[in-house]
Amino acid sequence: MNRKLRMGMVGGGIKAFIGAIHRHAALMDNQIELVCGCFSSNPILSKESGKLYYLPDNRVYETYREMFEKEAQLPEGEKMDFVSIVTPNSVHFKPAMMALKNGFHVVLEKPMTFTLEEAVKLKEKVEETGLVMALTHTYSGYPAIKHAKYMVTSGELGKIRKVYVEYPQGWLASDVENQGNLQAAWRTDPKRSGRAGCIGDIGTHAHHLAEYVTGLKVTELCAELSIFVPNRQLDDDGAALLHFDNGATGVLMASQVATGEENALKIRVYGEKGGLEWFQHEPNSLIVKWADKPIEVLRVGTSMKSPGALHNTRTPGGHPEGFIEAFANIYRNFALTVMSKMDGKEPTPEMLDFPGVEDGVRGMQFIETMVKTGYDDTAKWVKFGE
Amino acid sequence: MNRKLRMGMVGGGIKAFIGAIHRHAALMDNQIELVCGCFSSNPILSKESGKLYYLPDNRVYETYREMFEKEAQLPEGEKMDFVSIVTPNSVHFKPAMMALKNGFHVVLEKPMTFTLEEAVKLKEKVEETGLVMALTHTYSGYPAIKHAKYMVTSGELGKIRKVYVEYPQGWLASDVENQGNLQAAWRTDPKRSGRAGCIGDIGTHAHHLAEYVTGLKVTELCAELSIFVPNRQLDDDGAALLHFDNGATGVLMASQVATGEENALKIRVYGEKGGLEWFQHEPNSLIVKWADKPIEVLRVGTSMKSPGALHNTRTPGGHPEGFIEAFANIYRNFALTVMSKMDGKEPTPEMLDFPGVEDGVRGMQFIETMVKTGYDDTAKWVKFGE
Amino acid sequence: MNRKLRMGMVGGGIKAFIGAIHRHAALMDNQIELVCGCFSSNPILSKESGKLYYLPDNRVYETYREMFEKEAQLPEGEKMDFVSIVTPNSVHFKPAMMALKNGFHVVLEKPMTFTLEEAVKLKEKVEETGLVMALTHTYSGYPAIKHAKYMVTSGELGKIRKVYVEYPQGWLASDVENQGNLQAAWRTDPKRSGRAGCIGDIGTHAHHLAEYVTGLKVTELCAELSIFVPNRQLDDDGAALLHFDNGATGVLMASQVATGEENALKIRVYGEKGGLEWFQHEPNSLIVKWADKPIEVLRVGTSMKSPGALHNTRTPGGHPEGFIEAFANIYRNFALTVMSKMDGKEPTPEMLDFPGVEDGVRGMQFIETMVKTGYDDTAKWVKFGE
Amino acid sequence: MNRKLRMGMVGGGIKAFIGAIHRHAALMDNQIELVCGCFSSNPILSKESGKLYYLPDNRVYETYREMFEKEAQLPEGEKMDFVSIVTPNSVHFKPAMMALKNGFHVVLEKPMTFTLEEAVKLKEKVEETGLVMALTHTYSGYPAIKHAKYMVTSGELGKIRKVYVEYPQGWLASDVENQGNLQAAWRTDPKRSGRAGCIGDIGTHAHHLAEYVTGLKVTELCAELSIFVPNRQLDDDGAALLHFDNGATGVLMASQVATGEENALKIRVYGEKGGLEWFQHEPNSLIVKWADKPIEVLRVGTSMKSPGALHNTRTPGGHPEGFIEAFANIYRNFALTVMSKMDGKEPTPEMLDFPGVEDGVRGMQFIETMVKTGYDDTAKWVKFGE
Repeated sequence: MNRKLRMGMVGGGIKAFIGAIHRHAALMDNQIELVCGCFSSNPILSKESGKLYYLPDNRVYETYREMFEKEAQLPEGEKMDFVSIVTPNSVHFKPAMMALKNGFHVVLEKPMTFTLEEAVKLKEKVEETGLVMALTHTYSGYPAIKHAKYMVTSGELGKIRKVYVEYPQGWLASDVENQGNLQAAWRTDPKRSGRAGCIGDIGTHAHHLAEYVTGLKVTELCAELSIFVPNRQLDDDGAALLHFDNGATGVLMASQVATGEENALKIRVYGEKGGLEWFQHEPNSLIVKWADKPIEVLRVGTSMKSPGALHNTRTPGGHPEGFIEAFANIYRNFALTVMSKMDGKEPTPEMLDFPGVEDGVRGMQFIETMVKTGYDDTAKWVKFGE
Repeated sequence: MNRKLRMGMVGGGIKAFIGAIHRHAALMDNQIELVCGCFSSNPILSKESGKLYYLPDNRVYETYREMFEKEAQLPEGEKMDFVSIVTPNSVHFKPAMMALKNGFHVVLEKPMTFTLEEAVKLKEKVEETGLVMALTHTYSGYPAIKHAKYMVTSGELGKIRKVYVEYPQGWLASDVENQGNLQAAWRTDPKRSGRAGCIGDIGTHAHHLAEYVTGLKVTELCAELSIFVPNRQLDDDGAALLHFDNGATGVLMASQVATGEENALKIRVYGEKGGLEWFQHEPNSLIVKWADKPIEVLRVGTSMKSPGALHNTRTPGGHPEGFIEAFANIYRNFALTVMSKMDGKEPTPEMLDFPGVEDGVRGMQFIETMVKTGYDDTAKWVKFGE
Repeated sequence: MNRKLRMGMVGGGIKAFIGAIHRHAALMDNQIELVCGCFSSNPILSKESGKLYYLPDNRVYETYREMFEKEAQLPEGEKMDFVSIVTPNSVHFKPAMMALKNGFHVVLEKPMTFTLEEAVKLKEKVEETGLVMALTHTYSGYPAIKHAKYMVTSGELGKIRKVYVEYPQGWLASDVENQGNLQAAWRTDPKRSGRAGCIGDIGTHAHHLAEYVTGLKVTELCAELSIFVPNRQLDDDGAALLHFDNGATGVLMASQVATGEENALKIRVYGEKGGLEWFQHEPNSLIVKWADKPIEVLRVGTSMKSPGALHNTRTPGGHPEGFIEAFANIYRNFALTVMSKMDGKEPTPEMLDFPGVEDGVRGMQFIETMVKTGYDDTAKWVKFGE
Repeated sequence: MNRKLRMGMVGGGIKAFIGAIHRHAALMDNQIELVCGCFSSNPILSKESGKLYYLPDNRVYETYREMFEKEAQLPEGEKMDFVSIVTPNSVHFKPAMMALKNGFHVVLEKPMTFTLEEAVKLKEKVEETGLVMALTHTYSGYPAIKHAKYMVTSGELGKIRKVYVEYPQGWLASDVENQGNLQAAWRTDPKRSGRAGCIGDIGTHAHHLAEYVTGLKVTELCAELSIFVPNRQLDDDGAALLHFDNGATGVLMASQVATGEENALKIRVYGEKGGLEWFQHEPNSLIVKWADKPIEVLRVGTSMKSPGALHNTRTPGGHPEGFIEAFANIYRNFALTVMSKMDGKEPTPEMLDFPGVEDGVRGMQFIETMVKTGYDDTAKWVKFGE
């Protein structure tokens, strides 16, 4: 392609944390330009945001419906190619479906939708239209995670037996949702967040990471969800014992009342020959522990030489790459895939390596299963997704 | 007292790993002397060991029965005061009971006994005789753990909500019990180890640490035990969701097939105001995370000023204290307690702070509960100790 | 301003490591757009690079002279606002001077120039024209470094006594410059790199960081430079004892033969009340050690609340920010300063907080002083910059 | 030998920090027993201390002269074999010389003596008598340091080029010597400490460690010593550039005003093929960095298999060994050497691996050289020991 890919946004007005991340991530590789948006359900805020993003007034819309309809009628050389939807969970399905119906590719925040049913419908629409949808399960975008997946799936660690994945946070340890914290307010509100709180917000990341790194699927789980903060309506903590489809077992822990923790996402995978450990706060290292030789510390840019790690690294060794770069890897691979398709070429496996509708549906199944069993003491093990 | 306490040993011959640790721990504080022993069920090995330990021949016995009987008849100024029993689990109850019956205090390796029933009997005998029994749950001997307990139980972290405790090891990732590893051989043998493998060997340490640090009791649990290595007869891995008596929930993970891990015992406790983290590989630090102020790293000898931490620290800050020192703290406090009693004085709370028969019985209950539910998929939650 | 700032580039063609970083950094904040460039001294490579960056052919130039002259004649609404010069040291002065003469603001790679004399001339030209020049001493762009500077200069640590700064790398431990490594080739070539190798390449970063964080100036130093790899013509290692203008002393270490090290830049500063430590491989933490209270670990986005840290952080706590974000902070502050001036407003202190011509001149003085004394055994202490 | 080695002590009364460490270290291996002592220059304190150590009254002496004379006359089966001298530096030479003259082996605290002259005399006396003298440069007793030495001297890292060694402490950041801190009082007093403060107390440890690990000798150095705390009479800080006898260069840093630091002793050694790093606060790990393969973390008890590491390790992998164990390794090897000699056997190289008179003399030379040049700005490089 001889031009950048054109992006529109739904959500992501001034002050929206994740919207800004999406823009940093989309723009940093000089492949995507922001051309339009409906940045808020409040039209004035949407307009103000658009100005700050240097957009012409006529490309800043009052509703996403208006945006999709008008953009669809713009000439090929001008209209947006894809939309990023960065709204609360309750406002994922409608704009995503509308985007697909109007021929736009989609980048969608996780969890994919409000209900599993919606996720399945989106998946079917994506398959029907042949459009590309990416889901921002950011953590699988880290180059060290690409390398971890490579090591595990290429058999370096031997047959996998144990998976420990955990995501402790502490920011919801008190009722900040009643103290003006907007991020907390919608995440703890069943009408905007859905059936799950913590488990939908960060548990899904942990679940996705475990399946991504190992290439295994959770087949059944035994879980407990808890609400620790009084009067909160959704879970703020949960844990599950896991069974994987190769016979491995695991433990998943997610909490938003682990006071003092930031985003302490960690995954450990143990096979017959060795184990590995990755921790988001030091994302450029992968600690590999062997049965019969010294511990190794693999480093992004230096000793991680798998195709996926190399493809998703922007700097030589010793230059820490962070969360925004991991996020940008999803945008970059999504963009490369879209551009390849536009050019009539087959995207490479590295380009296609971003979370998509299959992952989104599994994420919703994870939420449904956790919620079904997390408060129920009658059955111990419950099949995943049933 | 104007003399050192006199120690005998059952087990702990040359090549026995844990026996040597017991001697280092007992001797380093210049309060205890080794005076006799039956160091092996093999009389020749027992004699050879005694020589290496500089004991006179007549204080090295062929059976522990002989030892208890003969020592009991020695004059006060000569006979041993207490015995350390460092044999496999199946040889805990008989020598311990015999020691108590002959009037000797006891230091006993964990888990306390082969069965819960034996543990209860020992506990009753200890209570009946007024003798002192210590159980070497080493990890609670670390000064940083003393300080952690102080912080939690004095309410610094607020009401406790979450406890994560984990003990991953990798040394049983293959069938080393069939390849000449004696430590592995008895631990994987139901006749010598009891009903549990991994869960009895290290799961009990994790359980004890969780209850010790928090001052809470596990009331029910939901567990899975696994055997990963073919033809092994006892669990080599397990995990449990926990309920505590104050409403807190937790997760316990123990594995001996976490390939490449050494003794990666870690505990994390989160209350309403803050959380703490301790990791055995860096045992002199306690990481404290607060809801509203910077993370603190408390250090043994410098910023841990609780009475328990101070009492159990031998060096000023910056001199790493290790596993043997933690072990020695159990011996030291046991010895101080015994000596106080001999002198007709009341031991201080710091002296009495070592694991004893109550802990031993709870440990056996933990094992029984884990084994009962760990392979059973019918009930989700099972009451502790029932 | 109602439009993005327009950037041109000198250097930074395909395969140039640092050029790509400049683009990521410049673009990620949606404030700057790339509009033109002369990306290589090889016109074909320049054209090819321009295509990949989606530039129209007529904005990709064959020489930087051509670029400055033609861009200067473009209408206001089209021509570039500033140029980024990312060429080897020998090609800094001429394009920078030409840019200034043609009215363009400049972002310049460090060290500022080939000789101190050139640096002084550039500084004078900047002062004469009132144009803005930024120098990419990236490491001072990290938010944790902003906070460290705040803590030190606001007196939290008390009067500063000791500064340890070190930058060990290992990539030049063998003669890779003769084995096809282009980055090594120019850096070890006196004709392209100047009088210094290691000390110019990374020693200047360490020196700048020390002065930036402490707000102190080096007044004299005692140094040794070494060449370890046979036949190399420039230093690949050096160390210096430092005197600062407040009476503090320090040590600076820089090496490119510290085999196995990546960019292990670390700074430690000790005052009468406390000390701090920052390490580039974990750039989001600042370890603060106090005389009389526990060690604190301050974290970007959570517990670093100084204006500079907040202004230079893009994400909430727990989202690691990396090297590119630090780099982007220089571009962002440079851009905010330029845009403020264009709008006739006074830039805020936070906007003005990027390395500039004063830092560039001091960097060249540092190189000159180190080279003068680093091979000379007659004088112990040498005045800085004389 | 069929008995334990018998130890006497000079110094080490109640409250003396280092004396207690010596006893823990000497006793923990069940090879040494404490039989007598003169624990204080205050006879009452000496007697009280002896009681607490369970010694009979007639083996607790009022002066060390009395002790050596009376012990020398005791029968072979009773008298002490060696003495530990744990007094301030000014009281090293006399008791050590007296001990040697009376036929006793000696363990001596570092630095060896008050002056270089004394050290040389002691060395000559040791050589003349054939008695054994050990010097407690504790840090070289760590098993990881044994392994580091093995790696370096066996050539695994290639020819050594760079050595960084540092020992920052913060406990003398204010004038605690005037506030009742006895440890500080004698260390900052030229009459008891000698010509150097910080450099004698901890700089000598750093110097010894550098020479021990590398097997190289410092040939010349360029140093600065400083006194930061007003009215202090001895250096509380210093740094030196080093030249080694193989052409390697290095940097040594020692400070007791690095506020907030404990005993942050670290050594890094870089050769042509790789580098290694050891840090006392995590003494069971050795980080090895390679030119062409991943970083390795070697662990005591697991992946350190050199004879020296194995010989000096008491536990299997995963049981942290600390400062007291490192200290005990000196006692153990000293005792094994003495016992071998008593048995008429040749000690093994592992037994002989403890610091002795050669190290002591070099330590005094280091102090003399540092003091000579540390305040002198005329000469840059000064020959070691001249």
